Amino acid sequence: MAKKKEFVEHITSQAEDFSRWYTDVIKNADMVDYSDVKGCMVIKPYGYGIWELIQKEMDARFKATGHKNAYFPMLIPESLLMKEAEHVEGFAPEVAWVTQGGTEPLQERLAIRPTSETIICSMYSRWVQSYRDLPLKLNQWCSVLRWEKTTRPFLRTSEFLWQEGHTVHETQAEAEEETMRMIRVYKEFAENVLAIPVIAGQKSEKEKFAGADHTYTMEAMMLDGRALQMGTSHNLGQNFAKGFDIKYLSREGKQEYVWQTSWGTSTRMIGGLIMVHGDDRGLKLPPKVAPIQCMVIPVAAHKPGVLDKARELTAALAAAGIRTEIDEREQSVGWKFNDCELRGIPVRIELGPKDLEQGQVVAVRRDTFEKITLPWEGLAEKIVSLLEDIHANMFAMAKAYRDAKIFPAKNFDEFRKGIDEGKGFVRAPWCGETACELEIKAETGATTRCMPLDEHEVVDGVCVHCGKPAKKIMYFGRSY
Amino acid sequence: MAKKKEFVEHITSQAEDFSRWYTDVIKNADMVDYSDVKGCMVIKPYGYGIWELIQKEMDARFKATGHKNAYFPMLIPESLLMKEAEHVEGFAPEVAWVTQGGTEPLQERLAIRPTSETIICSMYSRWVQSYRDLPLKLNQWCSVLRWEKTTRPFLRTSEFLWQEGHTVHETQAEAEEETMRMIRVYKEFAENVLAIPVIAGQKSEKEKFAGADHTYTMEAMMLDGRALQMGTSHNLGQNFAKGFDIKYLSREGKQEYVWQTSWGTSTRMIGGLIMVHGDDRGLKLPPKVAPIQCMVIPVAAHKPGVLDKARELTAALAAAGIRTEIDEREQSVGWKFNDCELRGIPVRIELGPKDLEQGQVVAVRRDTFEKITLPWEGLAEKIVSLLEDIHANMFAMAKAYRDAKIFPAKNFDEFRKGIDEGKGFVRAPWCGETACELEIKAETGATTRCMPLDEHEVVDGVCVHCGKPAKKIMYFGRSY
Repeated sequence: MAKKKEFVEHITSQAEDFSRWYTDVIKNADMVDYSDVKGCMVIKPYGYGIWELIQKEMDARFKATGHKNAYFPMLIPESLLMKEAEHVEGFAPEVAWVTQGGTEPLQERLAIRPTSETIICSMYSRWVQSYRDLPLKLNQWCSVLRWEKTTRPFLRTSEFLWQEGHTVHETQAEAEEETMRMIRVYKEFAENVLAIPVIAGQKSEKEKFAGADHTYTMEAMMLDGRALQMGTSHNLGQNFAKGFDIKYLSREGKQEYVWQTSWGTSTRMIGGLIMVHGDDRGLKLPPKVAPIQCMVIPVAAHKPGVLDKARELTAALAAAGIRTEIDEREQSVGWKFNDCELRGIPVRIELGPKDLEQGQVVAVRRDTFEKITLPWEGLAEKIVSLLEDIHANMFAMAKAYRDAKIFPAKNFDEFRKGIDEGKGFVRAPWCGETACELEIKAETGATTRCMPLDEHEVVDGVCVHCGKPAKKIMYFGRSY
Repeated sequence: MAKKKEFVEHITSQAEDFSRWYTDVIKNADMVDYSDVKGCMVIKPYGYGIWELIQKEMDARFKATGHKNAYFPMLIPESLLMKEAEHVEGFAPEVAWVTQGGTEPLQERLAIRPTSETIICSMYSRWVQSYRDLPLKLNQWCSVLRWEKTTRPFLRTSEFLWQEGHTVHETQAEAEEETMRMIRVYKEFAENVLAIPVIAGQKSEKEKFAGADHTYTMEAMMLDGRALQMGTSHNLGQNFAKGFDIKYLSREGKQEYVWQTSWGTSTRMIGGLIMVHGDDRGLKLPPKVAPIQCMVIPVAAHKPGVLDKARELTAALAAAGIRTEIDEREQSVGWKFNDCELRGIPVRIELGPKDLEQGQVVAVRRDTFEKITLPWEGLAEKIVSLLEDIHANMFAMAKAYRDAKIFPAKNFDEFRKGIDEGKGFVRAPWCGETACELEIKAETGATTRCMPLDEHEVVDGVCVHCGKPAKKIMYFGRSY
């Protein structure tokens, strides 16, 4: 027990310092390391394994909704970046500039892509000629770079990995349909794969993407009550079409500007799943993105037959498609249990001499610590259904936690209480004006998160802050 | 027929101008486009689809040989890049430099990675402490940038996509074993997935990787007789270990420098498969990396039942795991046949009213143009085995072509004949000296390709060029 305690003490508790807890966990669970390059992280195999599973799940959804992958250059000439006015204003301050290629200074500076609308639109203006070329629905997996002053692994780094979808349509209605489709795909993914409940909704004018008509977002609540924007889907209207002269010959034989969307999610989601599910013992990974779903730990491995059987069960579970490993390292069993918990492995399987005699194993759930004795016969089926249970329970726990920390507010006292004492989200009627939004932020630190898509309350009464007539229901919260 | 001819005329014939043929094919088959950024290409969905299949096949092989994926920053501080002398000399002239981040000039220039040894070694020096941490076997999928003066899509572009493996070992023998293992994995992949016969062998001192003790390569012959280096595996010895101070506590309790390897392949392989298999009608894709393996074309689609049955067969083939699409576009059947050939789709399936009556389809092989009548019953199994046949035949054809253009040479007359008239590879005894290699290149344009691993001829006699005692068997050729 002494060893166990010592081990766990490497991690600051959530209650003591949530931010320290976060960095302790990702470092100790061997997910990331800091590099010599300011603001850039190294994603180690255990962290990258989660990203690979996220990619696989998402990519299948993109393809099922008719998108294809492509790759565009990472360097964008300054003149291209400047073509859409709002966009350049939003991104220019955080661009890294290449000014020298080989031994020669460049005639024109090249930006490392902070996002790829401009380079992609410059190609779309050549590719799109007629309505027959539409819709054009591409996605790109790549890294992007935004020069950040203060960074935190996964949540905000200068370079990060992401996917960015870019689509082109004949009509405004089709572009809106696509924008909505993709925020729905993201929400379904967050809930069914990451076990994270999210509020899908529309961003305020102030918070929308630089260059979009409007932006939808999915917002999750972390265990410290703060909001994390987990993915966004933008209706770009004709803003880029006009900046980049993307026109098509319509079915009526006229030259028309196209309608566009873009949408993205990133490695930031990994930060989200850590802060939604983790506890003082470490990570708690949702089974569908856990690089190791099941860790087999032989107990008293020197006793005859234990190791052989443990290996046999490991192979059988792996063969059944469960991501299973066996821990044969030289450390103590107690140390290995802790290590499993720290790394958030959903199920740990113990097999000792007694289990060997009785033809059973002991399975321990990471989400509840419940111990379940299971016979060898039919073990894989049992583990598969256990993993499903764990997913469902993790989602339910996260949702219960979040729902209890959403505070409806009719006036600014209630608003302050929700933010300052409740440390959660406030849901309130709002006037919709940027000036009011800025005042709220200055006074409470809370920002507008989104106007929910799935809550159809009639909005009447007055704005929670300024007292003007309310126009929207808005979620507010302090955010990452 | 008039239409067919007109269509094919978009592509220059191989005999007329091989280089034009190549660019015509990749442009017309919609694989790539040129961007506004010098030397950087856009990989369109049809080209990127091939890369995705390459990644999937390769990644499975890397994992099966015990490697894990990770991600390291794309920016490398200049001081890091300078730490290994030969390496910096090799790469510094082709680096793109970031000198400005956001609104501030940087204190130190940052290189966009031309390859990642330096940034990865800076992390390995922290991660490796003891023999228990070894071997460390990571791989990274990413893009790299090398500022190139003259570029050609897939073959040589400033930015390109690749994978780079980086491993660390206790002993020289283990590092050598890994270096060899990975060139073997590459060769097996080239032959069994890309249907490209390759010569695996060792590079000369002059041609090895900047910073390696020695380099293995796989070399393929294109249809114009020139060589393409398709992948390399480097034994880095202790060069980077010493530059980056990567030491470990040995089993004997001593601090020792580690032994390292690195190995890489890139989107260049796509250029290779185009130039090994293509013909005057266009691409000829090896079935295992063909984004569309089977294209169903309804003939007289307006006749009752044709379209329905064509769709039904398409769905059935897709459900059986064959990448199948149906061409329902408004163009003529002849145009669609040509389009299938241009895009190199291995099998085209025709279904018309007569086939409908007789419960059959006509399958046409892209490799031989053979027409085969197949009953609906058991169609998927037949297509699967047809695709296997096509792979085997494409490999056999490529090998026969290559083998006929490998010319053994005992003296420099024979050497010149092989290069100038034979327009192929020359295989000859060689002294092994860089000065001799440089003279051969100056006189014939041919460079050393590799010293074969799988040919165990006793080397006696004299160097094919300088007349000194021969030490090696070397392949020579003009190269891309």
